[in-house]
Amino acid sequence: MRYRKIPDETVRRLPVYLRALHILGKQGKTGTSSTELADMVAVNSWQIRKDFSYFGAFGKPGSGYEIDSLRKKIAKILRLDKGHRVALVGVGNLGSALLAYTGFETYGFDIVAAYDCDPKKVGKKVYNITVKDIANLKDLKKDTIDMAILAVPESAAQHIADKLVRAGVKGILNFSPRHIQVPKRIKVITIDIAMDLARLPYYIS
Amino acid sequence: MRYRKIPDETVRRLPVYLRALHILGKQGKTGTSSTELADMVAVNSWQIRKDFSYFGAFGKPGSGYEIDSLRKKIAKILRLDKGHRVALVGVGNLGSALLAYTGFETYGFDIVAAYDCDPKKVGKKVYNITVKDIANLKDLKKDTIDMAILAVPESAAQHIADKLVRAGVKGILNFSPRHIQVPKRIKVITIDIAMDLARLPYYIS
Repeated sequence: MRYRKIPDETVRRLPVYLRALHILGKQGKTGTSSTELADMVAVNSWQIRKDFSYFGAFGKPGSGYEIDSLRKKIAKILRLDKGHRVALVGVGNLGSALLAYTGFETYGFDIVAAYDCDPKKVGKKVYNITVKDIANLKDLKKDTIDMAILAVPESAAQHIADKLVRAGVKGILNFSPRHIQVPKRIKVITIDIAMDLARLPYYIS
Repeated sequence: MRYRKIPDETVRRLPVYLRALHILGKQGKTGTSSTELADMVAVNSWQIRKDFSYFGAFGKPGSGYEIDSLRKKIAKILRLDKGHRVALVGVGNLGSALLAYTGFETYGFDIVAAYDCDPKKVGKKVYNITVKDIANLKDLKKDTIDMAILAVPESAAQHIADKLVRAGVKGILNFSPRHIQVPKRIKVITIDIAMDLARLPYYIS
């Protein structure tokens, strides 16, 4: 089931809520309120209630939301409930850091393949993943991997993105500061790390 | 001048707009519209117009917004117009990737110092920055650095954050998946890379 009418802005906030619910769950809590969540995620409580109402999650007056069922609902909408196999392309400093990063599990992601073009890296193990030759990217289709993290230098990003599309990848998380052009059916999310830093000066007077 | 009434959600989107305006500027354009921006940043055009109206930027009917003046206005509100000196703490894979990252300039950030606790790294140059001993974090105050990027292992994050606060840092960009506790006057923005990936499955099939 697809909830097509959820605005992009709400879709962007759903993983933020999921993360907050994950933290509350780890603290042993079973229930929460839009006010508590608002404090954690810096979104107004009315906006949170509105976002939740898009998929029919209404808090009970006085008692709020049941954490576990809300997590399951959000994960299902975001299609995170079944788990996802992801490929990493580019095993430089950033790529290596991503392979070491433990936060992907929270959302059901498993980086199952890593590719690089450097012969010194191909065949080596980096955090338990054996680096493959980028010439074999077409194996992604066979391995039923439809999402990729792109952590290659800016100059290679478009070229590798084209290869990923030909290999059947449907979604790309792009870390290069370059705008990447892909066919309309492919979704690219570009992460600009500096952009998050850009909010900080506003708050530190 | 501080525009206190701008909602956090709008402040979060302002760097996104700034980035889009930067791209349009590089393409040689001088004007844009909320519709064009909406396509680039996946925010509704009415939301964009509302966000801009918080700081009195109203597009002209028919001709829209003048890119350069809009960029300057947003940079001023975000306090990015004067430039910022930033320290990096933790020169592992992620930290090294951040030192190599060219995207900080767009927003006026300059990483001027890098710290690590590993004696093998201290004194070495990484992308033109000489790594300092983390024991000297207190120098930040003397060097008038009030923002830091925290790229240390999860287990060290809180301890180092405490040191940063004592060294006079007012804002922290935290890459560890750990929730960090700081005094109320300090602003922490936590980046969870996996969270951006978590939006992708929703859009791919």
